Amino acid sequence: MISKMLEEARSAPQAVEALLAANQKDYVALSERLRRNSPSGIVTIARGSSDNAAAYLAYLITKRTGRLVTSLPMSLLTLYHAPIATAGLLAISISQSGQSPDVVEPIDQLRKGGATTVALLNDMTSTLAATAQWVLPLHAGPEESVAATKSFVCSLVAGARLAAKWSHDEPLLEGLRSLPAALEETQKHDWSSAVEPLARSERLMVISRGIGLSIAQESALKLKETCGIQAEAFSAAEVRHGPQALVAEGYTLFAYAMRGPAQKEIVALAAEMRNRGAKVILAAPADIPERDLTLATTAIEDLDPVTAIQSFYPVAEAVSRLRGRDPDNPPFLKKVTTTR
Amino acid sequence: MISKMLEEARSAPQAVEALLAANQKDYVALSERLRRNSPSGIVTIARGSSDNAAAYLAYLITKRTGRLVTSLPMSLLTLYHAPIATAGLLAISISQSGQSPDVVEPIDQLRKGGATTVALLNDMTSTLAATAQWVLPLHAGPEESVAATKSFVCSLVAGARLAAKWSHDEPLLEGLRSLPAALEETQKHDWSSAVEPLARSERLMVISRGIGLSIAQESALKLKETCGIQAEAFSAAEVRHGPQALVAEGYTLFAYAMRGPAQKEIVALAAEMRNRGAKVILAAPADIPERDLTLATTAIEDLDPVTAIQSFYPVAEAVSRLRGRDPDNPPFLKKVTTTR
Repeated sequence: MISKMLEEARSAPQAVEALLAANQKDYVALSERLRRNSPSGIVTIARGSSDNAAAYLAYLITKRTGRLVTSLPMSLLTLYHAPIATAGLLAISISQSGQSPDVVEPIDQLRKGGATTVALLNDMTSTLAATAQWVLPLHAGPEESVAATKSFVCSLVAGARLAAKWSHDEPLLEGLRSLPAALEETQKHDWSSAVEPLARSERLMVISRGIGLSIAQESALKLKETCGIQAEAFSAAEVRHGPQALVAEGYTLFAYAMRGPAQKEIVALAAEMRNRGAKVILAAPADIPERDLTLATTAIEDLDPVTAIQSFYPVAEAVSRLRGRDPDNPPFLKKVTTTR
Repeated sequence: MISKMLEEARSAPQAVEALLAANQKDYVALSERLRRNSPSGIVTIARGSSDNAAAYLAYLITKRTGRLVTSLPMSLLTLYHAPIATAGLLAISISQSGQSPDVVEPIDQLRKGGATTVALLNDMTSTLAATAQWVLPLHAGPEESVAATKSFVCSLVAGARLAAKWSHDEPLLEGLRSLPAALEETQKHDWSSAVEPLARSERLMVISRGIGLSIAQESALKLKETCGIQAEAFSAAEVRHGPQALVAEGYTLFAYAMRGPAQKEIVALAAEMRNRGAKVILAAPADIPERDLTLATTAIEDLDPVTAIQSFYPVAEAVSRLRGRDPDNPPFLKKVTTTR
């Protein structure tokens, strides 16, 4: 019997296909509106895995439109009642369950203040579906494993679709069309060699930079949730400003060197840490000889993070089992977490 | 012989006094300008400890002005060359050394694009001093220990002073005037009971929320740098969305329950984790009976984070020595880190 987590992760390509086939009118209408009335500011509102997807979306948006995106510390609204300037604001929430008050309340408040509110949302029966003006369904289907997998992949894709439509980015739209096939292809890459070294670590770092950092963050979260490993994500630059003091002989470091302008620096960091005696697991595309794991590539660099996390989920699931855990039921967690 | 780290941390009250006595005209002129021409957006640019100070400043600004602040992922400019919309933008950099290219280059680029550029800066001979339009010196004096202490405290204070002047916040300005005395007073609180339990931990979490989160982040960074402990900071809400799966019997958790609207939730979380068998160290003001350590309070809630970190630095220094490390010279780190 395989775990729900693995089953759900494996079904991500079909979910992505369903997502891309639906709601075309909504994406077009919202994008037209954003081009017509350029927002005065952009804010994302999300927790956990969804917040990692928000980091990916923020990168896509700023890279294309030059507009800065703020990741909202929700307590500013829910606890401190800051007088957020809402006129012209674009507020994008991302959620699987659509139930946590600290996602729903800010969207409600910002909408009432005149902001354009968007939800990338899986559970269409939730409060958030009735709260946001624009709801872009994730089409991941019911997700039963506590740790998000296919819903996270779908939230990356919904974000990429929105950014592509908004900025009329034809190569990104084209890349999205071939993404389900690329995700299927990804499943052929064997990352099982990473399972044992990860399972033996009580603490480690996950490194990437730029658009790949969101995937490092998601991987670190999964290692915490499902494996009980204290994994923290850092950019290849930030880690040098202090955290690298941890990386001594025998320390484990997982690095994603995806295509793009940060790749060279990440490969160099991996080599440097290996020279220190750290146990480095480097995931990189097939043209990087130093790699331990092969990262599948997609039609366009900016979509490589999607196939990267698709390759990682089965690893996290296997590490969880090897450490004697139930990947579907991490201790102390429920599928729906509500915070205020 | 005491370490430079402890010596420098202890001198923070005098440094803060020097900061508050100087550059009054600059703070006034910049604040007037910001009120006259309200920025179209606000971005902070910082690494390491300075980035934690930027998180504090962002909270102060949004709480008062309602303006959202984006923490810039520098690679968007330095590697991806995103076409950031600079017209009317306010860009605030924070740095001790003023030398890292990924702080200097974005400020240079944004200034050329028409943004208002500000540096909260300690080393006035650095490149950053010549790059930003508005330079607000930290007046921390030379800092020799690799881990920032007094320069971090000064960057918090410079940020608070700017936010107070900008928003004409008299209680905050008044609170700043009595802050040096409050910082001196802080040194009387004995936090030495935290040293042994922290020193025995290889991994732990530091919890706070809202305006205190920046101090949790700074504490976690210091535990990594100077003690080799993998400490990660979480808000009391975010930790519930996954990371709390780590907190089992015997796990160490350091929590800051500062005054303010998040306090109750943090005290409750500490109790809940203690019930699980976690080793919880709760720092809270004298009126919270569940506390293990007494947090000094200041004239105004929003300045309590400054005295909180002042109490923590001697703890980190002592933990470092107890773990057989040299607090002034963490492995693999230099005082000035340059990344791009």
